[in-house]
Amino acid sequence: MNFYILAVISSVLLWSNLSFASALLKAPQQSANFAECPLISGQVLAPCKIGYRTYGTLNDDKSNAVLVPTWFTGTSAEHAYLASPELLNPEKYFIIIVDALANGVSTSPSNSETQAGGQFPQINISDMVDSQHRLLTEILDIQSLHSIVGLSMGGMQAFEWSVRFPSFAKKTVAVIGSPRLAAFDIALWSTNNRLLALFRECECKEVLEVMAGIGMLAAVPSKLAEDISREDTISIITTRGQSNTMSVAESWDRQRQAEAMIEHNIARNFDNDWQKTAAQIKTEFLIIIADDDRVVTPQPARKFAALIGANVLELDEDCGHGDPWCAPEVFAQAVRSFINK
Amino acid sequence: MNFYILAVISSVLLWSNLSFASALLKAPQQSANFAECPLISGQVLAPCKIGYRTYGTLNDDKSNAVLVPTWFTGTSAEHAYLASPELLNPEKYFIIIVDALANGVSTSPSNSETQAGGQFPQINISDMVDSQHRLLTEILDIQSLHSIVGLSMGGMQAFEWSVRFPSFAKKTVAVIGSPRLAAFDIALWSTNNRLLALFRECECKEVLEVMAGIGMLAAVPSKLAEDISREDTISIITTRGQSNTMSVAESWDRQRQAEAMIEHNIARNFDNDWQKTAAQIKTEFLIIIADDDRVVTPQPARKFAALIGANVLELDEDCGHGDPWCAPEVFAQAVRSFINK
Repeated sequence: MNFYILAVISSVLLWSNLSFASALLKAPQQSANFAECPLISGQVLAPCKIGYRTYGTLNDDKSNAVLVPTWFTGTSAEHAYLASPELLNPEKYFIIIVDALANGVSTSPSNSETQAGGQFPQINISDMVDSQHRLLTEILDIQSLHSIVGLSMGGMQAFEWSVRFPSFAKKTVAVIGSPRLAAFDIALWSTNNRLLALFRECECKEVLEVMAGIGMLAAVPSKLAEDISREDTISIITTRGQSNTMSVAESWDRQRQAEAMIEHNIARNFDNDWQKTAAQIKTEFLIIIADDDRVVTPQPARKFAALIGANVLELDEDCGHGDPWCAPEVFAQAVRSFINK
Repeated sequence: MNFYILAVISSVLLWSNLSFASALLKAPQQSANFAECPLISGQVLAPCKIGYRTYGTLNDDKSNAVLVPTWFTGTSAEHAYLASPELLNPEKYFIIIVDALANGVSTSPSNSETQAGGQFPQINISDMVDSQHRLLTEILDIQSLHSIVGLSMGGMQAFEWSVRFPSFAKKTVAVIGSPRLAAFDIALWSTNNRLLALFRECECKEVLEVMAGIGMLAAVPSKLAEDISREDTISIITTRGQSNTMSVAESWDRQRQAEAMIEHNIARNFDNDWQKTAAQIKTEFLIIIADDDRVVTPQPARKFAALIGANVLELDEDCGHGDPWCAPEVFAQAVRSFINK
């Protein structure tokens, strides 16, 4: 789980501690191997491996497949708890959790032998979506989805799916995601990338401590004051920085995924015209927003939701980007009822 | 003016552009020279120079003196516009703007010949207050104040004055200040200090770019989206970093002032008991708070205001720490009427 989310919800019960979260063991890691994945930049990833895990059983008419794309730095293993009866019921759905490109499991700067580290091309959220589309259509022989459910960067992929393959999913749930990052988000992720570059230069914990400090600034101040004491603040940041074991290779994974978010823009192919973009939407949308989210700020998702008349759930738990984790029952109920209805 | 405030209000009319701001020319820089300033840590600054500028005339019964302590990195020159008829009227008041220790004008790491750079002892907000008290009582022969008006770190000094010399000022205005920094603020300033240390190691613009990026994260996201385009975000941060001319010596000024804020705690001498601390207050308080302030978060000031039954003005201009600059007339009117009543 990425350090921003960790920082925000560090003192909150993680889902994995809740009853419905540990209902299932992790499914085995699988992967699809392509000779290459073409990117919208014109470059290619070659070879190109896409990791995934599945839960439940595909029904005869293939109408129960649910795709879950992963959040920033997240793996399919870390998303396993979403496949639980209280959220995405594997008794009912065939759930495919796909490792996003550059997450360290799918083809990534940290694991590519041919395009390692900084040699790994820049990618876009739509490249992640294309790789998932190929996994579904070419490997799993799934030509339509019941739903797509994504959180954070997974929510960005869910938005991208809705314009790139508009008829593919009947329903789409974008949680603390964005159709296009706002200036604030770009400031955050680009600053993070500048720190990754400094880290590669010094390979020192001091830079990781700065990253931990910035991670803490994603919190809602009043909530942070409840969660940690002011006296311990500096030492907590130091400990988080010191215990960050990120390698230089992994720093490139983070950078490439952050660049993908910065470049993400579902209006790109529609003249940056939001009316035109909204006109593409065929999937039924549930858009879940965290009011005081300073990791993925909610304005773009809120505006797009209004434009397409989406179902909207606004969370305001004072946990910012961590709101879905601070209100797990509210969140799960909203997703469950939207998916099942 | 410090880079956080600059970042927040970069696209907003500065006061200096408003009619009432340029009413006066800057008064000449003056200074008081002490053989030494003892610090609460037990160390001393020796020699110890305190810079100041005065506006208006002290009346015969010395009842019209107004003290203005400076904000983080701010100088008395930069505070000159506060001495205007619409705010602190120099026709009526004798206004003394005092350069805070380590601001580069008063004794500072960047100008001390005996305690340069990292040799400069750590200071506290109360050390700044003590130096101002000596300036007033020993040099200017002023034994009481009509008012103290401070913004941001100046507001912290105003709070400190209220417990350190409770009967000295009849009225106190603390604007976007804090009686004791919250965890969030400590995360911000300590992260800033970590970056200053990295800057001293590399003396490179890359670190200053990171600082510019963090400065942008002090903005309210919805306001930032109005002020700068998402396409320009990264280049604006780069430009701000590249155009930051901070020297290594000046980095120590910033660090020592930031440390003073981190250690600031008006309850320190009262067993960290807020009831006991509140019981010290004799001055009449106006506390001005910015609702979404992520540079000096408002919770501590808001809580203390409630405890002492202070006059409170809550600003919510979507400019965060820049709210007093985004609502200059509302702000000036509140200060003027409180001071004049």
